[in-house]
Amino acid sequence: MTIVLGIDPGSRVTGYGVIASEGSKLIYIDSGCIRTQAAETLSEKLDIIYRGVNEVIHLHTPQEVGVEQVFMARNADSALKLGQARGAAIVACTFNKLPVYEYSARQVKQSVVGTGAADKIQVQAMICRLLGLEKAPQADAADALGVAVCHTHMIQGMIRMAGARKLRRGRLRR
Amino acid sequence: MTIVLGIDPGSRVTGYGVIASEGSKLIYIDSGCIRTQAAETLSEKLDIIYRGVNEVIHLHTPQEVGVEQVFMARNADSALKLGQARGAAIVACTFNKLPVYEYSARQVKQSVVGTGAADKIQVQAMICRLLGLEKAPQADAADALGVAVCHTHMIQGMIRMAGARKLRRGRLRR
Repeated sequence: MTIVLGIDPGSRVTGYGVIASEGSKLIYIDSGCIRTQAAETLSEKLDIIYRGVNEVIHLHTPQEVGVEQVFMARNADSALKLGQARGAAIVACTFNKLPVYEYSARQVKQSVVGTGAADKIQVQAMICRLLGLEKAPQADAADALGVAVCHTHMIQGMIRMAGARKLRRGRLRR
Repeated sequence: MTIVLGIDPGSRVTGYGVIASEGSKLIYIDSGCIRTQAAETLSEKLDIIYRGVNEVIHLHTPQEVGVEQVFMARNADSALKLGQARGAAIVACTFNKLPVYEYSARQVKQSVVGTGAADKIQVQAMICRLLGLEKAPQADAADALGVAVCHTHMIQGMIRMAGARKLRRGRLRR
């Protein structure tokens, strides 16, 4: 069983989602939001994100982490804020010796819904169906679960590919 | 004696400077650069910054930290990269329970040279004079020392102000 943590970092809300996979089966474990509104200073905000991610890691002991990649930020100011939140979240993972993989929003949509042009509602609905959830989680938590699903699909794909390569190699040897 | 760590974060080079103050006397302790060029992935880069800052903290046990504030980044892409580096550096400090203060480049110049419009060469020359250095440190390390000097001046100013307030209060009570 592989446990994967997905993170959707943000300066105000950082979503997280934890899923497990056994073969092709996906199992929902946990999801939620780390909120920084109560913090007065930047360093307090980043500390809340760092400690929040650290806590989720200690609670669920994931083996790998997926983080949403940023291609285009709206402007330099919001990019700086988002960058700081991402930095805090990512080092919480590397400090716990977890490998971190980045996925673009397009890759996540492609992996979860089957098309990179899917909208938020479609992604949330598919997340619910794939993980057997009755109610869609909060938007940032759902995005984080999407990244976790995307990374899990990616691992499964790699395992399948490795299997196929072994098979082909086997055939060639005959 | 108060030991202050100054940090000038950057995605490729993060400068650090450690100084001590005893009364109005400033003592140079250490300065240098944390370089991330060898890293292949973003998470490795941020991990190098986090561990580098953490190491400096453990080596010199500063009580307070000053970080250069960013007002205007060149563009969204460089702002995101800078933000990630800042996030990694700042949480290394908060994880060690150190208070982090932010200073703008203008505040640093004002504090070190006496005018917010000073250029890099003037700042470096003043850093050398204030800390009794024969040779100017590498540019990012010098900037970090500048932030440390600025924060130390700020503390000293606050102590003087608190002293003045005590004096005034004493006078009023008479």
